Amino acid sequence: MTDFAKTRALFHVPEGIVYMDGNSLGPLPIAAKERVAKMLTDEWGEQLIRGWNSAGWYVQPRRVGDRVGKLIGAPENTVVMGDTLSIKVYQALASALDLNPKRKAVLSDSGNFPSDLYMAQGLLGSLGKDHVLKVVEPEEVEQAIDESVAVLMLTEVDYRTGRLHDMKALTQKAHAVGVITIWDLAHSVGALPVDLTAAQADFAVGCTYKYLNGGPGAPAFIYVAPKHAETARPALSGWMGHAAPFAFDLDYAPAPGIERMRCGTPPVIALTALDAALDAWEGVSMQEVRKKSIELIDLFIAEVEARCPDLVLASPRDGQKRGSQVSFRHAKGYAIMQALIARGVIGDFRAPDAIRFGVTPLYLARDDVVQAAETLEDIMTNRLWDRPDYLRKAAVT
Amino acid sequence: MTDFAKTRALFHVPEGIVYMDGNSLGPLPIAAKERVAKMLTDEWGEQLIRGWNSAGWYVQPRRVGDRVGKLIGAPENTVVMGDTLSIKVYQALASALDLNPKRKAVLSDSGNFPSDLYMAQGLLGSLGKDHVLKVVEPEEVEQAIDESVAVLMLTEVDYRTGRLHDMKALTQKAHAVGVITIWDLAHSVGALPVDLTAAQADFAVGCTYKYLNGGPGAPAFIYVAPKHAETARPALSGWMGHAAPFAFDLDYAPAPGIERMRCGTPPVIALTALDAALDAWEGVSMQEVRKKSIELIDLFIAEVEARCPDLVLASPRDGQKRGSQVSFRHAKGYAIMQALIARGVIGDFRAPDAIRFGVTPLYLARDDVVQAAETLEDIMTNRLWDRPDYLRKAAVT
Repeated sequence: MTDFAKTRALFHVPEGIVYMDGNSLGPLPIAAKERVAKMLTDEWGEQLIRGWNSAGWYVQPRRVGDRVGKLIGAPENTVVMGDTLSIKVYQALASALDLNPKRKAVLSDSGNFPSDLYMAQGLLGSLGKDHVLKVVEPEEVEQAIDESVAVLMLTEVDYRTGRLHDMKALTQKAHAVGVITIWDLAHSVGALPVDLTAAQADFAVGCTYKYLNGGPGAPAFIYVAPKHAETARPALSGWMGHAAPFAFDLDYAPAPGIERMRCGTPPVIALTALDAALDAWEGVSMQEVRKKSIELIDLFIAEVEARCPDLVLASPRDGQKRGSQVSFRHAKGYAIMQALIARGVIGDFRAPDAIRFGVTPLYLARDDVVQAAETLEDIMTNRLWDRPDYLRKAAVT
Repeated sequence: MTDFAKTRALFHVPEGIVYMDGNSLGPLPIAAKERVAKMLTDEWGEQLIRGWNSAGWYVQPRRVGDRVGKLIGAPENTVVMGDTLSIKVYQALASALDLNPKRKAVLSDSGNFPSDLYMAQGLLGSLGKDHVLKVVEPEEVEQAIDESVAVLMLTEVDYRTGRLHDMKALTQKAHAVGVITIWDLAHSVGALPVDLTAAQADFAVGCTYKYLNGGPGAPAFIYVAPKHAETARPALSGWMGHAAPFAFDLDYAPAPGIERMRCGTPPVIALTALDAALDAWEGVSMQEVRKKSIELIDLFIAEVEARCPDLVLASPRDGQKRGSQVSFRHAKGYAIMQALIARGVIGDFRAPDAIRFGVTPLYLARDDVVQAAETLEDIMTNRLWDRPDYLRKAAVT
């Protein structure tokens, strides 16, 4: 049984703050402070260059990758850490296109995070005129999967509304017509159970600064299904993904398996913070996290709808059809969120009109979401969003 | 006048260690410990998502980029931090090829760091059959620059021997025949004076964990000459390089100038460590660092040659023609370096037979290099490299 009081104690949430933006940047895991300090002092400081072996820095991207893998149904040696999510999207897409060379279309949807679409546009721009990116509405994806498509590239959870794609069903449909799949798990990992093996996903990527609490700009991950691991060509072919990095050959030769998806020198300090953050998941049941997340969001929706009739639910009402976040629409959304933040309830705003709340059972409880709804009621009832002292700068995803 | 006793006190070098591997991983700047701890506690911990604005995380890649820019003759707003050097090589090369679309050859040399060549191979592999990577010997570069070449991509300082290319002359020759240049400054920045503006370099990239002491896997940088900044197409087109990242448009539009070379979410913890490390350069004259570096290496060569006749100098004898490192060849090079490390003199080994020493005046003095030569003499004279307890695992670049 997951002890949520115990997990809550692992995080620093400032006094007086209800933090409902963990879907954008998770809070500081208390253990990360000590772990990073120790890495700086005892590893970098004392071991210097030797730390690559003696402190395990060299193998860290795959060791930490295996820890992330456990949360997404990925077997050992199929996940590696590094770079940013945008870079990992590029890497996955370049490899996937290579595996399906006769087709030229990439299919995605308008609910994908824009950076994923931008990276695809950048890659396709380099590949030449034959390649196209086809972006449809989320509900049109299933019928748009056909034999013209090389790669289906989707984010499982819509960053705006939390709407959840059926990864398994869409992957099955894709495979039936020879399409390779890439799943962006940015808003899934640590938010809900994911089983890449059961879904038969080909590639998956994600970031670790949201529900995994790895810190601002924490490293990303990439998963390659075992069936592709020995054939995928890494377009971002750096020396750490070379079969023999220290032979300093002039020609690239990919390392076996997932190691080839490493690229440059790994970000050791950031990986150390992430490694400490992942300790919070020891002994935690993702099924129980999911159950609690749905309960808390259902409660929050009920409280908000009862108290704030002007706010329109933008997320699926059915908990099974959304991730671990919820959004409401209002023409004054931006100002409402600024007022909320000024009152200590931190969520965020997504253009054009959505206020968005991440719900994270590891450190958020029933009292928190009720308090958030009460504060929101006060702001709506008294039109506090017009108060100039509440106007603040916007936050970042 | 640069006070090297003062700069020395800024770094933690463990008791009993002579550290001559700062060309691979610089030592811990003492200020980095406190700065990172403060960032974790006061910024991430207390400000949470708001830190992107309130703690300046969002502008950090360019603010820190400007600090690096000062060390390489780059004007403000021409350098931005992020990713790894390998990724930045890819980014620069993709943009440079785009600026010279009628030509298909990339010229480099066998003294370039292999990862740069690998990244070029990966990119050219995606672009199709017309593109070629031509790798010549370092001394053949000048005559190989002709009108068939689209991009000249070189590392200024050879990672094996320290041999220095003439950046200004080669760039001039390249421009005379319509070739775009990319300079990798991995072993230059913080090692010797660099003036990208005077050299008229088109693109430059580099890492910050060597002579800039940013920590293992510290972020890389990219410079784009002002004349290209508004036309370069970023193939790695992520949302942080978008003209309006928070509009969440579905289509990519590059940000003005160097901002477009940002890609994903920046690595804030690592940038904070680097920012602290850069404080060491305040009040330091790069000309004096260069002068002292040449003096120290000249002294080291003289001491080693007098004491160890079996070691063959692999670096240019003329200080003006090498970077801030020196190598010697010996068939037993690997074992000799392991013995040296076991005795507290840390350098590294580069296949097939070179022992390599970085010389870093900020924290290395005459006594250190004499002591290193004495230890080397003892090992060579008494053939201590065969002692099994001296066998250790190899270090990493």
